Formats: sequence, C-alpha cells, structure tokens
Amino acid sequence: MNAPTTTPIQSTLDALPTDIVITDPDIVAGYAHDQSRFTDSAPPAAVLAPRSTDEVAACLRAAHQHAVAVIPRGAGSGLSGAANACADSIVLSLHRMTAIREVDTVNRIAVVQPGVVTADLRARAADAGLFYPPDPGSVDFSTLGGNVATNAGGICCVKYGVTGDFVLGLEVVLADGRILHTGRRTVKGVAGYDLTHLLVGSEGTLGVITEITVKLLPAPRPAQTLVASFPTLDGAGRTVSEIASSGLTPSMLEILDRTTVQAVDTLSKMGIGADTAALLLIQSDDIDAAEVLAQIETVCEGFGATEVAVSSDPTEAAMLLEARRLALPALEGLGDWLLDDVAVPCSRITDLIASVEKIAAERELTIGVFGHAGDGNLHPTIIYDQSDPASREAAISAFNAITQRALELGGTITGEHGVGRLKAGWLTVEHDTVSMSVQHAVKNALDPSGILNPGAVLTR
Amino acid sequence: MNAPTTTPIQSTLDALPTDIVITDPDIVAGYAHDQSRFTDSAPPAAVLAPRSTDEVAACLRAAHQHAVAVIPRGAGSGLSGAANACADSIVLSLHRMTAIREVDTVNRIAVVQPGVVTADLRARAADAGLFYPPDPGSVDFSTLGGNVATNAGGICCVKYGVTGDFVLGLEVVLADGRILHTGRRTVKGVAGYDLTHLLVGSEGTLGVITEITVKLLPAPRPAQTLVASFPTLDGAGRTVSEIASSGLTPSMLEILDRTTVQAVDTLSKMGIGADTAALLLIQSDDIDAAEVLAQIETVCEGFGATEVAVSSDPTEAAMLLEARRLALPALEGLGDWLLDDVAVPCSRITDLIASVEKIAAERELTIGVFGHAGDGNLHPTIIYDQSDPASREAAISAFNAITQRALELGGTITGEHGVGRLKAGWLTVEHDTVSMSVQHAVKNALDPSGILNPGAVLTR
Repeated sequence: MNAPTTTPIQSTLDALPTDIVITDPDIVAGYAHDQSRFTDSAPPAAVLAPRSTDEVAACLRAAHQHAVAVIPRGAGSGLSGAANACADSIVLSLHRMTAIREVDTVNRIAVVQPGVVTADLRARAADAGLFYPPDPGSVDFSTLGGNVATNAGGICCVKYGVTGDFVLGLEVVLADGRILHTGRRTVKGVAGYDLTHLLVGSEGTLGVITEITVKLLPAPRPAQTLVASFPTLDGAGRTVSEIASSGLTPSMLEILDRTTVQAVDTLSKMGIGADTAALLLIQSDDIDAAEVLAQIETVCEGFGATEVAVSSDPTEAAMLLEARRLALPALEGLGDWLLDDVAVPCSRITDLIASVEKIAAERELTIGVFGHAGDGNLHPTIIYDQSDPASREAAISAFNAITQRALELGGTITGEHGVGRLKAGWLTVEHDTVSMSVQHAVKNALDPSGILNPGAVLTR
Repeated sequence: MNAPTTTPIQSTLDALPTDIVITDPDIVAGYAHDQSRFTDSAPPAAVLAPRSTDEVAACLRAAHQHAVAVIPRGAGSGLSGAANACADSIVLSLHRMTAIREVDTVNRIAVVQPGVVTADLRARAADAGLFYPPDPGSVDFSTLGGNVATNAGGICCVKYGVTGDFVLGLEVVLADGRILHTGRRTVKGVAGYDLTHLLVGSEGTLGVITEITVKLLPAPRPAQTLVASFPTLDGAGRTVSEIASSGLTPSMLEILDRTTVQAVDTLSKMGIGADTAALLLIQSDDIDAAEVLAQIETVCEGFGATEVAVSSDPTEAAMLLEARRLALPALEGLGDWLLDDVAVPCSRITDLIASVEKIAAERELTIGVFGHAGDGNLHPTIIYDQSDPASREAAISAFNAITQRALELGGTITGEHGVGRLKAGWLTVEHDTVSMSVQHAVKNALDPSGILNPGAVLTR
C-alpha cells in the first residue's frame, strides 16, 4: 500500500503553525499580484503571515527543504510586479510584523519591523522631533519592508535622498532560513562587505527583510512653496537645469507636463490648463526659504514663466500643490493607465518629455508626464483601453519606446519603482552581459536553489 | 630535452607590455606594505603600473590564467594593511591612471580615474563652484580609487557623509579580467542589484576600480569655527550628545582627549593643556552659522566648558584648529604609534574614551584619543616602543581591548580605516558565522579562484 502522496507545498505548510497559514481561496486570490499592469500573475497556493523573525525563518526553512518558490510581499503597492505570485508559489506576507521597536533620539536611529507603514514611522519620528524623509507616493499604505526591498524614493529625495540612504542595518532571513544581520547602529562603519545595500533594492530575491535600522534627521523647518506655469516646455526644463546647477537645494522640485495639467484642469476646473506647457512645483525648507524661492522665482521668470505664485502659508501651499496631488488621479480618470518610471540626468528631462509627446502622437495615445524633475525621475503615464487589444499593444509599444529613450538620454529604466517582473527584460538591455552574469552570481551565492521570488529582477 | 621551467609569476609578466612591469628590487620593495603597523608583509614579486582600463584587464587576465595573487594598490596610505603584499604576489598600482575625465556642472557629477588625488578632485570641483566633500586625513596624497575601495571618511562626514555616499557608478575590472560597469549617471536608479556599493569598501578583494562616477554638491559656504575646552570628559560628551539630538548640523565636530591635548601642548607650547580633559572643535557652514555656533556655545557652557572661542575669520579659525591638525603629529612624536579606528553610537564616545584611559593605565601606556565625535568615530592612538617586545605586546593588548570595548558599546571595529589584514580576525567577532558565510559566498561569486588581495578582509 502506497503512502498518500503529498505535494512540496503541502509538506511546507504542514511544517508550519496553522495560524500563520492562509489557504482560503478568497483571501489567497487577493495576494496574486501587486498594482502593476502587463505582468503575469496567478493566485499562490497559500499565503504565510508570520508574526516574528523566527516564524519567517521557519517558513523559509520549510520552503527551502521542499524547494517551493516564496514571494515576499509588503503592502502590495508596487508597480513593477515584484510581488506577483504564480500558481506553484507561496506568498510570504510581512503584514503582521508592525512593531516600531525603538526610536533613539540621541543617536537619531529607529528600529522597525517590515510591516510598519511608512507614514506611521514618519509620524512617530515627528513626535520625537525627528524626520524620516523617504515619502514614496504610497507613503500612507506602503510598508518599510517593501520600501527597503525596492529602495523606494519619493518627492523629498531631491534634497534628502532615497530609502537606502537611511538604512544603517538589516535583519534578513536568507533563502535557507538562516538569519543574517547586516550593518550597524553607528553612523559610520566599514567592517566587511556592504551586504546592507546589496539587499536594499533586491526586491525579495536575496532574502526576506525582518528588521530595519534607519537613521533619522532633525525635524525639517516648515517649507515654503512656489508654483510656476510655463508656456513652453523648454522654459521649464531650463529652469530645472538652472536650479540644479545654481547650488540651491529645494526640498521639492516636481514637474507636470501639458497633458497632465490639462487632465488636472478637466478634473478640478482650476483653470490652469489653457496656455500651460509645463508646471513646476517647488518647495524649500531651508532657513532662508523665502530668499531661495525669491531666487527661483527670478529664474522662472527669466525662462518665461507666466504665472508664479509663492506662499509660506500651509493652507495656501496645499492649494498650490493640489495639481500635483491630483496628477495621477486625473490621469487615471482618462482610462486604463500604465504608470511608468524612468530617470535621466536632470538636464535631459525636457528631452524625455518631448520624446514622450512624440511617442504618444505617433500612437494616438494620451501620455501624461509628471514626476521628480529635480532628480530626473519622471513618471510617464500611458492612458489606454484595456478592453481593446490594439490599444493595449500601443500602450506596450509606447512603454518600450519611452524606456529605450531614457537609456539613450543617459538614464535608467527605473528610478524608484524597481525592476520586478515588468522590466526584467529591460534590465538586460541596461546592463551588459558582464553585469548580468555578476548579478546572477550574487543571486546564486545567496539563494542557490532559486526559491526567492523567481522571475523578479533576474529572468530565469 | 626539457623546456626551461617558468614560474606562474614570470608567465604572467611575460604576457604584459614591458613598460608596465616593474621588477627593480629597490622600487618593488617600496610596494611591500601600506602605512599599517603589526601587519604581515613582504616585497611582491613585481609591481604592475597599467595606464588604462584595458591594461588593467590584461594584467588580471594574465594573473587569473596563472593563478597569481594580485594586490590592488592606491596611494598606499591605508592604515589596515589592505595593500600589503606577500612574496608570491604582484602589486597592481593604479598611480598612472590620474585623469579627471569630466566635471558636469549641471548634473553635478564628476568622472575620474582611480589614481586622482582626493585633494585634486576637491580643487577641480571647487574651480567649478562645486564640492566633493570626503576629506580623509590623507586627502592630500590618498587617491580616489583607494578612497572608494576603503569607503574613506574624514572630518566633514558628520554633515556630508562618507565616500560611498558620493559614488554613483563604477568601472571595475573583475578577477578574471572582465570589465564590469555598475551604477549610473542619474541621481536615482534601482535597476538591478547595487553592485556599486558592494564594491565600495571591498578593499580590492572583489575587483579593481578603474573609473569612478561621483556626485558633487554645491560649493559650501565659508565655515565659522568654535573651540571649547572642558575640565571634565563627561561635559564634553554630554555636549556632543546634546548637539547630536538638538537638530543642529555642524560641518565638523571633533574631539581631542586629555592625553592628546597634552601632547599637542608639549609640541606647540599653546598653553591649552593644564586643566583640559577634552577639547571640542566645531564648525558650521550653515547660512545661519553664527546663530548655530551661538547655540552650541550655550550648550558648551551649560556642560561646564571653561574656555570657548568662536571665529568667523579664516586665519583665526586655522589657529583655533591648529590643535586638531597637530593631534597626530604630536602623538607620533611621543614614540612609535598605532593609530586605531573604531566607531560607537555618538552617545557612547565618552564611555569609550574613559575605557581607553583605563586600558592605557592598566598597561602603563600612553594612548591619546581624537577623532570625529559627531559621528562616534574615534582614533585611539597607542604610543609604544617598537624595539621593546613587552611594549609591543602591551600595545597589541591595548588595541584588542579597545576594539572589544567598542563592540561592547554597540559600535564597530572600524569606522573608516577598513579591515585590511589588521582586523580580519576581528571581523569574525563583529560578524557571526551566518554573516561571514554570506561574505565568503559573495567573494567566491566574484573571485572564485581567490586571486584578489587574498588575506585582506576575509581570512583564508
């Protein structure tokens, strides 16, 4: 008599506490994919929801033993498919590990679990008179584990840097369940290889982040705000270049192109759309912010800005920034949307925007561009009709053309959203065979059996 | 008839252009070691002095083919033995690759070869109205390749960060001679694993850096300077903690302990030594520097500082900072010296200094401590007599006790000098077996035959 056969996945689940294993199909279906479009996914076989590092280690030991693919998942707010599951995989969700373990106000560090919502850490730091700068668009629902795994950016990066710039050390569960500690609690340290920053941005393919030590900054001063409307794209671009090379350090330097401004205008009836080729939204939290913005105002006017509004009043500033807040909702309202993410040297942003206009026109698509002009990181947002195969094909064609153009302009295929499954093919265009072979060698060194997030970042 | 036998080293040298191969024993002897003490070394079999990336690649292809150990070397100013040679090795010196390829003032980046002297890049950036902040003590003779390979620090790190914080991308020749490009020219980018920062601080064990893309900052404002003398170590320590937690961002926050101050006083006859337990040297280059230093002055006085001098005049400031400049020369004048480098959370610096005083007294040694109080990175400098075996032994014992104490205080075995050969044993104390096994796995992934700087960072 044969013993009943059991699958590798069932063997994995059997090895774990039942109260961290979710197999209810209705729940599991919600873990099939992140917020990306045009990426493959399927409901996983199960979702694991460990409550501690030891439980994460148990999950990976079991999965490793049975050679089951594990998809680590934060809040699922990613836009590149890095958290997408496949039918024979298990999703490992960190949503129950939500403790802020420590906020040290003297040494200005915090220690958090991966499931902490980014905005919650920012609020907790602010309560202590401190500042955790990274502010991805998803700040109100994305979690620190995902932010670190994708090296998330945001609006204030132009002055303060990205998530990785704030990570001092990590606790990580490796593919085989061993627990790795990287980095340190000191500001400086050069003991051994920088495994911390190898893991930052590795999108769950090298290990599962279970604890994060971040550095914090002193609380920033209240920002003052300037919004400038340009009748030409070129004027806005020259303004950005001039600010970048001037030595001024705005804490926000965002751009909205004509298409985005018109979409916002349609939605909000602000009356800003008619003659605007580009809108710049700028803040300074320097102690001499008024003087900084006065200088920037002069630059804007020198390059033809027709309307420049400045305010130090928070309510008024929020109104000035309303167009930025509405950029994505307004574009989303036009149809199905594919939010792209590329970065170019900031002197080339208008070249990119002009190229996107051409790419859109050639395909009779609407593509709005907005994003972080100050660090060259733009989000072309392609509007298409999901129900129309020709429109879907045109969207994909535009997406590829934009990515190609970013590379031609000396840029990168992704500034802050990550490679995931969406751009794994493009990674091999940006990086040559030597680079790809080294990346595969690193992957093999840390995850030799390849169970961690297979298909993300590196194609199999 | 047998063919004449040839050694692997001779085979390697025979494959290379003769004008990049140095075998003159008098010259080669000068490449035996860096400036470290208590580290093993021997003159290498030869020195290679390539002039281009392609020549570096040829060197490594040949060495790899014949399994010859290669010791990459910058200016040889390291203090941890990372550039020490052994008898059967070849030193690969980057001193002929000295081009500053590009300074882009709009996108604020520079592209340099590894042999560029750090001060030369800083000067070139300053000429363009820009700023390359890292300023290791060796800034006038160390080179960028070595700075990147060791992730060098310096005085202005307290505000601006370390070398790695400025590295955007690298060209690196791998152990087998393949040429790897990492990173990008954009401020942001998350395409693939962060190989750039894996290589930063890897001390020549993972690849040979042949080109570096760094980001530059706007030129800083002129700094204002404050020097405060404390009758108690505790007062100085509380001042540092208070500054750290206050949100003030000095561009320099250095400390000299009693032993160092007395040595400086003996050398310079400044008359600062009598009642000084610690001296703090502080600068601010903020726009409101006068106000920042006024606040810091109040803090200093609150914690018992007896003399506080402030100046905005560069000549006067240089006089105030003379004690810092003389710290190492003054200690060096007392005998043979072993310059250590540890970092602790900055709230623990006085604990470390007090421990060093105890460690020195127990061994009847003179140990002066100075360093970067603002980021917790201190340089205990052990004075001993090289000709006296008992004194040498006491120095090593003190060195080990200080390193152990730094770890106990939540710190690291090295803040900015690197592991090299001096602290390769200690690395296995700071990092557990999981971490060490991952570091070895990474080393094996990039240098499977182990020819690159064997014995540095990772013990064989």
